[in-house]
Amino acid sequence: MATTFTKGHGTENDFVIVPDTDGSRGLTAHEAAVLADRRAGIGGDGVIRVVPTASADEESVRALADRAQWFMDYRNADGSAAEMCGNGTRVFATYLREKGIETSDEFDIATRGGLKHITHDGSMVATAMGPWRLTDPDKAAADGVDSVVHVEGYEPFPALSLDLGNPHTVVLLPPAVDLDSLDLTRAPVVSPTPPNGTNVEFVQPVGPGHIRMRVHERGVGETRSCGTGACAAALATRYWGGPDSGDEWTVDVPGGRLRVRALPGDTVELAGPAVLVADGETTLI
Amino acid sequence: MATTFTKGHGTENDFVIVPDTDGSRGLTAHEAAVLADRRAGIGGDGVIRVVPTASADEESVRALADRAQWFMDYRNADGSAAEMCGNGTRVFATYLREKGIETSDEFDIATRGGLKHITHDGSMVATAMGPWRLTDPDKAAADGVDSVVHVEGYEPFPALSLDLGNPHTVVLLPPAVDLDSLDLTRAPVVSPTPPNGTNVEFVQPVGPGHIRMRVHERGVGETRSCGTGACAAALATRYWGGPDSGDEWTVDVPGGRLRVRALPGDTVELAGPAVLVADGETTLI
Repeated sequence: MATTFTKGHGTENDFVIVPDTDGSRGLTAHEAAVLADRRAGIGGDGVIRVVPTASADEESVRALADRAQWFMDYRNADGSAAEMCGNGTRVFATYLREKGIETSDEFDIATRGGLKHITHDGSMVATAMGPWRLTDPDKAAADGVDSVVHVEGYEPFPALSLDLGNPHTVVLLPPAVDLDSLDLTRAPVVSPTPPNGTNVEFVQPVGPGHIRMRVHERGVGETRSCGTGACAAALATRYWGGPDSGDEWTVDVPGGRLRVRALPGDTVELAGPAVLVADGETTLI
Repeated sequence: MATTFTKGHGTENDFVIVPDTDGSRGLTAHEAAVLADRRAGIGGDGVIRVVPTASADEESVRALADRAQWFMDYRNADGSAAEMCGNGTRVFATYLREKGIETSDEFDIATRGGLKHITHDGSMVATAMGPWRLTDPDKAAADGVDSVVHVEGYEPFPALSLDLGNPHTVVLLPPAVDLDSLDLTRAPVVSPTPPNGTNVEFVQPVGPGHIRMRVHERGVGETRSCGTGACAAALATRYWGGPDSGDEWTVDVPGGRLRVRALPGDTVELAGPAVLVADGETTLI
């Protein structure tokens, strides 16, 4: 018995997608980890099961079934369930469209982090990511930063922390420091130490409304792209730029180009490409 | 137009296999690199095109067509052509058998490194890898070593260098040093410096005819398995053990278990598992 899968990526954040369109298959943590294994399995940063929202294991997800037909059952590479993955939502939504499961340009999907609104816009797919906030607005109010980040070989960098459902700490690099030359093979050290760790983004301005960034993901290391990290980088740069700095940002990450929009009500939208690269069958699970 | 592929691995050394059974497709270096990309592509340590020996680009390979029907057109992850890959030969041979292209238990395959004899033996696939030799037998004759290897945090380790078509330098770890605790995130430094670099194997004995090893591959970093490295590790340990140390070795690598046999005429055979994990179609190339 072979299991059908699709592999896809958004700005090189890549996923193994397993259709379970009648909700009968399920997917154990072990099975997800086997699929995500880059050498013994198919390989991906995560695994996405495509399942009717009404068939979700979690009652809190099933409660969304009248607003979103499909649930993105997202798993980390170790098989554990995760609430959300910004780049994952675009790949999930692209899968639904390319397979003819969803046919409209806009629809809601269910995630463990709640409903997410998807908009297809030419080759871009946009996801309304939800609310964001400064982690410590009082401290940031004084001089726009709330912490410092230590990277070997440099003086400590001032930094600003944001909460997008997960924690981020953003550094605006001084012009004299080259973004490409930073050594991120070891985790940057943030002080004061965030209680649950943090993802760290290093930003270099390119022009008005346009930044480049690299990201060190908590517990993972440097990655090619991080959706919430791109949002945090744009929102921090916008905060530092003051009221005239605009609401739409182009964010270049090592894996490609993302677009971040600050929306009313302190919410944020992430847009970018999503590509399905292969369909296959595996006997691994 | 979709391209058919299979993904497989031998002790977690993994490959994307592309059938070109009438030799009409070809495979450019760029196409191979796109397939091997672990995030934007399918992902693998290398790419193997399955092509009739008579259709090989290289005249030296076509000359083998009367002895081997199929040519393993092996590419590194960057798309460049390589002479040989020991773990790759097992996966290639398993592909030929599982797809019904070869039906016997023993056959020859063509590689850029010459003919290789394959033997299927239950769940194991064995490849006659060809000749090996000590790199500097005169220097080794004195006390069994010819160089030292520097790893941060330890005194220099004495080492022995072997040539298996590619260069290897083998360290027998002292009992007080734990194989698992070595930091191989940075390349070990070999002295005297080998002119073309070297692969470095660290070995710990398990019992008679049985070793564990970790390998740092030249230009790559630590890997889950290295076929020629396992052969070098076993042959060096056998050399140090003297005439009574036997000709058959079990070599445990991070990705699984290999068997190495010293054959007459200073040649060596590598055996181990090979698994095909998925068949698919991609529009990437």
